[in-house]
Amino acid sequence: MKIVIAGLGIIGGSLAKAIKKYTDSYVYGMNRSPEPLRQAMECGAIDEIGGTEALRQADVLILGIYPEAAVEFVRRHAGDINKDCVVIDTAGIKSEICPQLAALAEEHGFSYVGFHPMAGKEKNGFGVSEADLFQDASAILIPGMAPHAAVERIAGLCRKIGFGRVVYSTPEEHDRMISFSSQLPHVIACAYVFSPNCPKHKGFSAGSYRDVSRVASINAPLWSELFIENKKPLVQEINTMIDNLAQIRDGIEKGDREELASLLLRAKLIKEALGE
Amino acid sequence: MKIVIAGLGIIGGSLAKAIKKYTDSYVYGMNRSPEPLRQAMECGAIDEIGGTEALRQADVLILGIYPEAAVEFVRRHAGDINKDCVVIDTAGIKSEICPQLAALAEEHGFSYVGFHPMAGKEKNGFGVSEADLFQDASAILIPGMAPHAAVERIAGLCRKIGFGRVVYSTPEEHDRMISFSSQLPHVIACAYVFSPNCPKHKGFSAGSYRDVSRVASINAPLWSELFIENKKPLVQEINTMIDNLAQIRDGIEKGDREELASLLLRAKLIKEALGE
Repeated sequence: MKIVIAGLGIIGGSLAKAIKKYTDSYVYGMNRSPEPLRQAMECGAIDEIGGTEALRQADVLILGIYPEAAVEFVRRHAGDINKDCVVIDTAGIKSEICPQLAALAEEHGFSYVGFHPMAGKEKNGFGVSEADLFQDASAILIPGMAPHAAVERIAGLCRKIGFGRVVYSTPEEHDRMISFSSQLPHVIACAYVFSPNCPKHKGFSAGSYRDVSRVASINAPLWSELFIENKKPLVQEINTMIDNLAQIRDGIEKGDREELASLLLRAKLIKEALGE
Repeated sequence: MKIVIAGLGIIGGSLAKAIKKYTDSYVYGMNRSPEPLRQAMECGAIDEIGGTEALRQADVLILGIYPEAAVEFVRRHAGDINKDCVVIDTAGIKSEICPQLAALAEEHGFSYVGFHPMAGKEKNGFGVSEADLFQDASAILIPGMAPHAAVERIAGLCRKIGFGRVVYSTPEEHDRMISFSSQLPHVIACAYVFSPNCPKHKGFSAGSYRDVSRVASINAPLWSELFIENKKPLVQEINTMIDNLAQIRDGIEKGDREELASLLLRAKLIKEALGE
């Protein structure tokens, strides 16, 4: 296949490396700034720097850029995209993005499948991308109205490059689940390090500090866009979290050890029932 | 040295294994139930099952049991403890425990140093103990009124068995810092998994879900004791956390992307300034 990747950050760069490592596809890279293109050519993550001609031949176009920029990119290049191409975005929110990209696809005759690779790091950029970032991760696909063959082309590619499972969803379910499983942990990490005691933690901390604070090293422009575009479910999750913290706090203040233990035991049972 | 370890759970068991691996001390084990003693004898984590006679000869007595049980143990055996012995507890809270153990030490002529090894797992019991649990971890010591030589005996032992640093503190500072660095992450993990969306997370989650929820698999009886005995600083940390979550939520609801990004950037800078 001929694959164009627009945006060679950690996600686009890792997809490029994974595709070159695990498939025999030909990969074109596109990027606003030239440095990631140079690095990607140098390490073999892409075969060629792409442009209009690459879009005309592409079997798959991957948008490795921020959500709104992805819509803008497709709008600008829609006329050049191969009619047989399947366009996929990699955005962390879907309700705002999928309908716009699906409409552009319908208008111009190519296919569009929403895609969210559930992997990442607390660092950004092509420099931290890696071929095996997606090993055993979930690939969420939002098929929408895309033809079966288009969806299968993407699902097959995901399996080849190491994803552990392909999950099919809708924009609404995706955004509701992501608000809990990914956005809320980022909000929690930021709120946590705002404690006045945080700067003094050294010598008094271990794994539980490290884990809860890890993603506080956040890409602020990206996540502020993701949070605001997923406002409704995320605000609901934050409010639920505040209520649950208040419930545990009230149990501590009341001081009934057995009552508090049975509340904490409920958390243990939920966590252990999930097995991960 | 002759070392008695009372309580062979994950902490007492790991200390036994570390002491046997890294020193030539002779280790006695004591435990309410016989099974951990049998396992510890079998794998060489202890040399002998201890009792009154062992306490009479001990250079160090390590209390690997719950805070209140530790005080009870020392009260019951105080008359048998060697006058040259240094008693250390391993409790996760200190203001409630240190004064009681220091008073017993003064009354009976042995020494007492508060000790909190900053290491653990989300599982409990001798079965998950390991000799290298403390590699590079902090050992917090609360010297109080203990003689210099007694404190040095413990600090030296900590360095020998792999701790990366020894930090000296007071019961009050310890409890304030621990409420942030260890107790609050456990409260957060439990509150997090109470979300109605938690049981449906599979396929929609990755590292940030895993990290924030890890310690929800909590030892409920132990932590309910620790939380309630450290009520004041912990409730304050939870309230700070709730305020910080509400601040981020308000920023999301307001929808000003630049304002939210600058709030999140503050978290990133705090986290990165700490370097870990």
